[in-house]
Amino acid sequence: MAEGPQTAAEAAAPLTDQPFSDHTEPIHFGDKLAGCVQRRRSQIVLGLDPDPARLWPEALELAGGARGGAGERAARAVAAHCRLVLDAAAEQCVAVKPQVACFERLGAPGWAALREVMDDAAQRGLIVIADAKRGDIDISARAYAQAFFGATATPFGEVEGLGADALTVSPMLGRDSLAPLIEAARERGAGLFALVRTSNPGAADIQDRELAAGGTVSEAVARMIDELGRPGVGEAGLSDVGAVTGATAPERLEALRALMPHAVWLLPGIGPQGGSGRDLAPAFAAGPAGGLVSASRAIVYAFESGDGGAPAASARDEAARLRELIWGLYA
Amino acid sequence: MAEGPQTAAEAAAPLTDQPFSDHTEPIHFGDKLAGCVQRRRSQIVLGLDPDPARLWPEALELAGGARGGAGERAARAVAAHCRLVLDAAAEQCVAVKPQVACFERLGAPGWAALREVMDDAAQRGLIVIADAKRGDIDISARAYAQAFFGATATPFGEVEGLGADALTVSPMLGRDSLAPLIEAARERGAGLFALVRTSNPGAADIQDRELAAGGTVSEAVARMIDELGRPGVGEAGLSDVGAVTGATAPERLEALRALMPHAVWLLPGIGPQGGSGRDLAPAFAAGPAGGLVSASRAIVYAFESGDGGAPAASARDEAARLRELIWGLYA
Repeated sequence: MAEGPQTAAEAAAPLTDQPFSDHTEPIHFGDKLAGCVQRRRSQIVLGLDPDPARLWPEALELAGGARGGAGERAARAVAAHCRLVLDAAAEQCVAVKPQVACFERLGAPGWAALREVMDDAAQRGLIVIADAKRGDIDISARAYAQAFFGATATPFGEVEGLGADALTVSPMLGRDSLAPLIEAARERGAGLFALVRTSNPGAADIQDRELAAGGTVSEAVARMIDELGRPGVGEAGLSDVGAVTGATAPERLEALRALMPHAVWLLPGIGPQGGSGRDLAPAFAAGPAGGLVSASRAIVYAFESGDGGAPAASARDEAARLRELIWGLYA
Repeated sequence: MAEGPQTAAEAAAPLTDQPFSDHTEPIHFGDKLAGCVQRRRSQIVLGLDPDPARLWPEALELAGGARGGAGERAARAVAAHCRLVLDAAAEQCVAVKPQVACFERLGAPGWAALREVMDDAAQRGLIVIADAKRGDIDISARAYAQAFFGATATPFGEVEGLGADALTVSPMLGRDSLAPLIEAARERGAGLFALVRTSNPGAADIQDRELAAGGTVSEAVARMIDELGRPGVGEAGLSDVGAVTGATAPERLEALRALMPHAVWLLPGIGPQGGSGRDLAPAFAAGPAGGLVSASRAIVYAFESGDGGAPAASARDEAARLRELIWGLYA
């Protein structure tokens, strides 16, 4: 389990500073990720949840001259904001996680901004995780796979999807709903993060229910994820089917890791108010890249709770602090 | 339970042929729906899952002169196809259900086409159900609510969402993930359909699991949906929190109806190959509008399995056949 990071770093070494999309033969998602984590010495995922009413002031200035309706102008400002946040904090992070809802609410211009932000992040060498929590029956799952990883055949030529490196998905519809997404991701060297145990209080309503056969719903999902991910375990020992596993329930993490020894975990709910990093040990039992720690508002709005520094400097400092904290404990 | 349809029809009567968005004071979702079902004498939901590689030939001709890249041109053709399908079958149906994945895969132009199709359907007096199966933590759920029902405040003015009458949602993240969507929907006279028991084989993987406390995961979801929907029961006895309940598991329908007496059910999996209509009795225990029967490919591609008729005529005939079948049994 802990065999891989060095190997993976070597395997992925020639990729340094190259956007992944330049490579026609896909590198396995887990190996690519393990290499990036080693190179960048970071397990931090920069969450981008842009609220048009709370953008950095500089973004509003930059987008001030944009034309069009409110949707077009807001989308320009959101894209400018994300670029500034990436300028400030990208170097401290291994991945970026745009929250798709925040772009969707701006309509077609928002979707164009999402693509722009994802392309920008990829060019900076970041792993791009589209946080969309999609989940549907097979034929619709295939359409989502086309939207996020693949391409759509049309009589007018192929329409490229967003080119994500990974996508968050809901496992509620079961194996046959995940299969088309896994197939499409695997083909492209991309990965998935299935919701196993989320960080919100409402996770208790369904996910924490005890099953008659033993274990919780989350644990049943974890077993399913492990099974689906086994054919996709790379050289670094990491699977291309990962899990969203809330760090707010540390007592559950050990049991979940035993069920998913190869899954990369995406851990939301970390930040200034989050649990202590020490609780996260089970995440890194799969190696330093076995746990990705997500932070968005904690980084982007660090300037509001800080010592009055500029947004960019405060974001960089907070991202660097989190990076050191997590790296120091487990790498 | 079976008290309401006539009352609701009367309550909603002045709305005939008026698009809903013209009304500033929202009508309750269940009452609006019950009125529409009575007026149109239909419980059929026209699913729009446009595949750019399988559009009606006339749509390709209509969009042949469109400019732009493959995405723009495919989106124009998809919008033209949906308009033709609505021209053919809308009068036989009470609602339309665009599958959002099919539009998302065409990028920003696809999102613009989605809005166009939804506006077109609303103008025809159809209830518009966005089939997006969204589900996320509270702050992101609020963003999805803005995207589908509400509007987003920006420094450049409000950006209007898609104006859906209803949205399909995933309940896996629990009550606090659904609350912002319910609040936004209720404010606007819109509704939700939560995934309770889907029609795919994979539903067995999680949804059919037996709980230690008794019942299945689906039944626990059903209880939660009922509880969340109780404050939103309208005069017709229907709640604004409905359920996606697969008609492929008829033996479960009775138990689920007992747990959700006021929920409108959205029943996928009906069509030429689907189960017999008689299995659906529990759906209509809440009145004729208690069960909406969805069909997409069965209608749109009826011409391929039929007697060589034109796509539009075959679609109309199949929609009319389904409408009569369901209406005759339960209304």
